Amino acid sequence: MKALLPAGTAQLVGIGDDAAVLRAPDARVVATMDLLVEGRHFRRDWSAALDVGRKAAAQNLADIAAMGAVPTALLVGFAAPGDLPVAWARDLVRGLAQEAARAGASVAGGDVSSADTIMIAVTALGDLAGRDPVTRGGARPGDQLAVAGRLGRSAAGLALLEAGLARPAGPVAVHRRPRPPYGAGPQAASLGATSMIDISDGLVQDLGHVAEASGAGIDIETARIADDPQLRAAAAALGGADWLAWALAGGEDHALAATFAAGTKLPPRWSVIGAVRAGTGVHVDGLSWAGRSGWDHFR
Amino acid sequence: MKALLPAGTAQLVGIGDDAAVLRAPDARVVATMDLLVEGRHFRRDWSAALDVGRKAAAQNLADIAAMGAVPTALLVGFAAPGDLPVAWARDLVRGLAQEAARAGASVAGGDVSSADTIMIAVTALGDLAGRDPVTRGGARPGDQLAVAGRLGRSAAGLALLEAGLARPAGPVAVHRRPRPPYGAGPQAASLGATSMIDISDGLVQDLGHVAEASGAGIDIETARIADDPQLRAAAAALGGADWLAWALAGGEDHALAATFAAGTKLPPRWSVIGAVRAGTGVHVDGLSWAGRSGWDHFR
Repeated sequence: MKALLPAGTAQLVGIGDDAAVLRAPDARVVATMDLLVEGRHFRRDWSAALDVGRKAAAQNLADIAAMGAVPTALLVGFAAPGDLPVAWARDLVRGLAQEAARAGASVAGGDVSSADTIMIAVTALGDLAGRDPVTRGGARPGDQLAVAGRLGRSAAGLALLEAGLARPAGPVAVHRRPRPPYGAGPQAASLGATSMIDISDGLVQDLGHVAEASGAGIDIETARIADDPQLRAAAAALGGADWLAWALAGGEDHALAATFAAGTKLPPRWSVIGAVRAGTGVHVDGLSWAGRSGWDHFR
Repeated sequence: MKALLPAGTAQLVGIGDDAAVLRAPDARVVATMDLLVEGRHFRRDWSAALDVGRKAAAQNLADIAAMGAVPTALLVGFAAPGDLPVAWARDLVRGLAQEAARAGASVAGGDVSSADTIMIAVTALGDLAGRDPVTRGGARPGDQLAVAGRLGRSAAGLALLEAGLARPAGPVAVHRRPRPPYGAGPQAASLGATSMIDISDGLVQDLGHVAEASGAGIDIETARIADDPQLRAAAAALGGADWLAWALAGGEDHALAATFAAGTKLPPRWSVIGAVRAGTGVHVDGLSWAGRSGWDHFR
């Protein structure tokens, strides 16, 4: 497998020793870990191994970006049944390496084990390059709320797959292979973002974490969520599904949501979709909105 | 769970955000990951949850020490069936936090998921404090070979448990709860160790990695391996097992083996048990020795 994993620029000691040694030029390191379990987070009949690897890497790399950091390295734990085809494992590793490279990082180490079910643990590390980390806790009343990346396409793709449909192809492709806007995270930090979060569980639910951590309320205006022809096409293919629900509640696109002081001029990739107000909770068009529950994290 | 996990001194942003932010004062970070799968790496009927947590942390923290670094933080991924008693998960977390604290570190983040089998992924991070990392690749002919920590007790404990015995208690306790000599790693680095490895798969097998990475041969003199009354007692309880085989082939004590230039004066915790020579492979008392195979790592 090592041959599939080129050393990254951050690697001082890579795969093959007791531990990797990586540059952390900022004298701080940003670190996150997610688990993916077959049957819960992916299905082999719906996603090719390459896509599972890309997705496993993407969701962790997006968490690094959401702190305002630049990803430097991944560590990967891989547990699988002994009868798993070697080609599947190899494609998984290729996918991890490809997505790491997209974000400027590399796979620097990990572990393999046997297990009855495929489980993938990915740790991502990143560097803040002198910027303050952007937490979930800094949103202030009056701030603008903005999003980088697309909303709801992954959820639309999942709904299509669950209905046995492989088209429209756009949302299905995003569900299999999300494309987080990695560069938008450090960009937001440089623009003075007051809070930021990776949208993994759904816009409303994840903004609920920001609202709670910040001790503030958040208003979303659905009229400002860009109309997405891919979501409309998917909704039509499913006989008239609620495309806006995907945008509000669908996770796994790994778009980034951030808040910025009023008046901050934002580059085009950041779309303003609402504002921070005094109070608590997330309102959608002025009403509180009960989103579906997502994965519980370790907090 | 967060209440069970006190923030460590290295933590700038801890559990509850997209990612943790940790001090890396040396501008490098040492990072490693291991997986533990129920039925492969631990059994709930043999080990309490607290001990599984301590062991999961210990084996990763020992890898950090084996690079010459001081552990700073753990990230923990935990997948388990929905019917797992909450107390089991809580004790696991307690064990992880306890062992992290023993090594001067803390649990700074992670993820939880459901799964049919318990799986634990632990990432450990560490700081070199200005020292060069000690890899497996620097052993040179003429170097002394030394070990810090005990050899074979965990394997003896496992053999007792497999035979349905809970006594002698010493080796069983070590099997459940290894006590790696964390401080010996940075100490060896400060003494100029030319190579170092965490003994997780067995002394001979792990020294085989050092020999290969260093392009040298290694000689172990069994007469210099300290006679261990605990191993002798376990061997007697099992009707005359080969205690030396445990010391040579047993892993999971997480002792450290290191090589030092000839003439390096070593503190008492480091016992010289052999030397590096020109050539290849590991010889035990002058003969090549086929050790049992261990876990394959991701290399």
